[in-house]
Amino acid sequence: MFNAIVSADTLRATLDSVSVLVDECKIHLTDEGIEIRAVDPANVGMVDLRLDATAFESYETDGGIIGVNLSRLEEFAGMADAGQLIQLELDEETRKLHVQIDGLEGTLALIDPDSIRQEPDLPDLDLPARVVLEGKDIDRAVTAADMVSDHIALGVETDEEAFYVDAEGDTDDVHFELGRDDLIDLVAGDAHSLFSLDYLKDMNKAIPKDAEIEMELGEEFPVKMHFDIAEGDGTVTYMLAPRIQSD
Amino acid sequence: MFNAIVSADTLRATLDSVSVLVDECKIHLTDEGIEIRAVDPANVGMVDLRLDATAFESYETDGGIIGVNLSRLEEFAGMADAGQLIQLELDEETRKLHVQIDGLEGTLALIDPDSIRQEPDLPDLDLPARVVLEGKDIDRAVTAADMVSDHIALGVETDEEAFYVDAEGDTDDVHFELGRDDLIDLVAGDAHSLFSLDYLKDMNKAIPKDAEIEMELGEEFPVKMHFDIAEGDGTVTYMLAPRIQSD
Amino acid sequence: MFNAIVSADTLRATLDSVSVLVDECKIHLTDEGIEIRAVDPANVGMVDLRLDATAFESYETDGGIIGVNLSRLEEFAGMADAGQLIQLELDEETRKLHVQIDGLEGTLALIDPDSIRQEPDLPDLDLPARVVLEGKDIDRAVTAADMVSDHIALGVETDEEAFYVDAEGDTDDVHFELGRDDLIDLVAGDAHSLFSLDYLKDMNKAIPKDAEIEMELGEEFPVKMHFDIAEGDGTVTYMLAPRIQSD
Repeated sequence: MFNAIVSADTLRATLDSVSVLVDECKIHLTDEGIEIRAVDPANVGMVDLRLDATAFESYETDGGIIGVNLSRLEEFAGMADAGQLIQLELDEETRKLHVQIDGLEGTLALIDPDSIRQEPDLPDLDLPARVVLEGKDIDRAVTAADMVSDHIALGVETDEEAFYVDAEGDTDDVHFELGRDDLIDLVAGDAHSLFSLDYLKDMNKAIPKDAEIEMELGEEFPVKMHFDIAEGDGTVTYMLAPRIQSD
Repeated sequence: MFNAIVSADTLRATLDSVSVLVDECKIHLTDEGIEIRAVDPANVGMVDLRLDATAFESYETDGGIIGVNLSRLEEFAGMADAGQLIQLELDEETRKLHVQIDGLEGTLALIDPDSIRQEPDLPDLDLPARVVLEGKDIDRAVTAADMVSDHIALGVETDEEAFYVDAEGDTDDVHFELGRDDLIDLVAGDAHSLFSLDYLKDMNKAIPKDAEIEMELGEEFPVKMHFDIAEGDGTVTYMLAPRIQSD
Repeated sequence: MFNAIVSADTLRATLDSVSVLVDECKIHLTDEGIEIRAVDPANVGMVDLRLDATAFESYETDGGIIGVNLSRLEEFAGMADAGQLIQLELDEETRKLHVQIDGLEGTLALIDPDSIRQEPDLPDLDLPARVVLEGKDIDRAVTAADMVSDHIALGVETDEEAFYVDAEGDTDDVHFELGRDDLIDLVAGDAHSLFSLDYLKDMNKAIPKDAEIEMELGEEFPVKMHFDIAEGDGTVTYMLAPRIQSD
């Protein structure tokens, strides 16, 4: 059983955070809320999302897992205006999801969860550097890097206490640096890793520009990025595997 | 002889209402105003438009018919700002239309009316159900139906006194219902017909979102939709033939 | 040596004025400011631009010429918000240009000036007619002409004291006329020349809609257009060669 009412904004932020990486996902329905974990087909980018029951106007479930085509559900959610409420109700018999918005009622076929790519385990890394910055700074770094390269290095200057982004193209380079004063928080530590820009661009699409993003970084290690959705009643963690650095 | 001045907004609303169905049309010039009737090449969608002489700033004609390439005339009308006036003047000798907007003067070649597809007779149907609703509700229904199907059923629930829209896709469905309270007016009667969504999407483009639309419906019958343009000094009627329902 | 700080708006207006005609250009660095002259590959459209040292927040150079890929530098300049400052600094050794915007630092490879098409001499023509008009009127004329033709005639009616634009298509024509009252200034004189609309459309993209444009015209002669950028601390001159008139 699953019957919940949620604001269009919250539902869309939730779905968008996952759909930048995968087309389909499993949604775990628990007493505490919903949980989604997914990894892209190349096993490079992962997402771990939790949306608490408190993020919903009303929330009832006796547990279970449903498989969802994200772009279809996003289309349905897109029918609602920003302030509107969306009711989601699982029809156990037909394995369809009823989506209600005002007078509008959609029925969405669910996907057999067993047919969806297995969920990843997000490794519990102890990364030496920690940076907290605004989403718009990630946007700025990613956009600048994209002008010159398809790779991006993220790192921390331990001496100068600064977070930096480096992108080296064939002829042109970009370097973006945020000192302690430009950052919300910084725990300096050895960190420098190279990433595929395509993944970071996709994740950047779902990162709210006005949110605080907590980044964990290491030396040729994955980067983790955490941010809140639903005014703190939900969290998203992205993890992106590094590329092997070529010299 | 034809010499008229009309606001850019009114001319554009008039032309757009017809151009969603056909590329060329005949414009009847009469003492009372202009009239356009047209049917799409497949004989499925029809439009009947009347723009009264009172909708014009000034209007003079001794009658006649002119043939117009709608997209060309729309381009010329598009040169005017929203509040500006457009003067239309027929040059009888060259069979060209002079279009004047402020200092700008365009000359538009007319089309021989005899070369334009014959005008349809809009049958005088006595349809059992009548629904009056806002244009934005048609937009909402059409957009929702378009997510799942290329057909759309329009009907009236006589018991519940509600207008409904149904679209059934291969896996997903949409149902949109407006009760008596959500409608401006309702005359309940047996009505359920299936239509091609493409036509309704085209008509929807020209239907003002904030206008009252009067819909007449029947059981496997065409739908008629009436609305005003030019603040009531003009009316548009669309008629759309039903598709044969497959079971 | 070259080290300058300039507002993003000014730099962008400067680059856009030139990039509508060419992909690469030489920038002359002088005590008085920067100068750019360029001609398109077909030798039809020319630009002559001057941006005074006073247009910069700070400006230092000991002279020289740098070769620039305009779209790359425009991309870098595009990273700045409208009000932001951009620092440009030449690295003499690497022949690269450092571009700094807030924490963001880009390095742009310059082009060997000798590999860039030779700069044109803008002939010092004594054209008989002079028209001063608003940029938005040029936009209006070009947009209207574009509906019917790929050529455009610019001329002056000496009797009626009016500037006119004529475009003749296969079936439709456009005529746009601005009398003395619609113009900021007019020195009437024999003038009528035909131009390729493509070039004028490109130049129109860079002409500020709210600026005063001074046009010099003759009888089958090039047209010159002058306008200010950087609030008068810079000027742009376009010159466009006429097409041979076919009868």
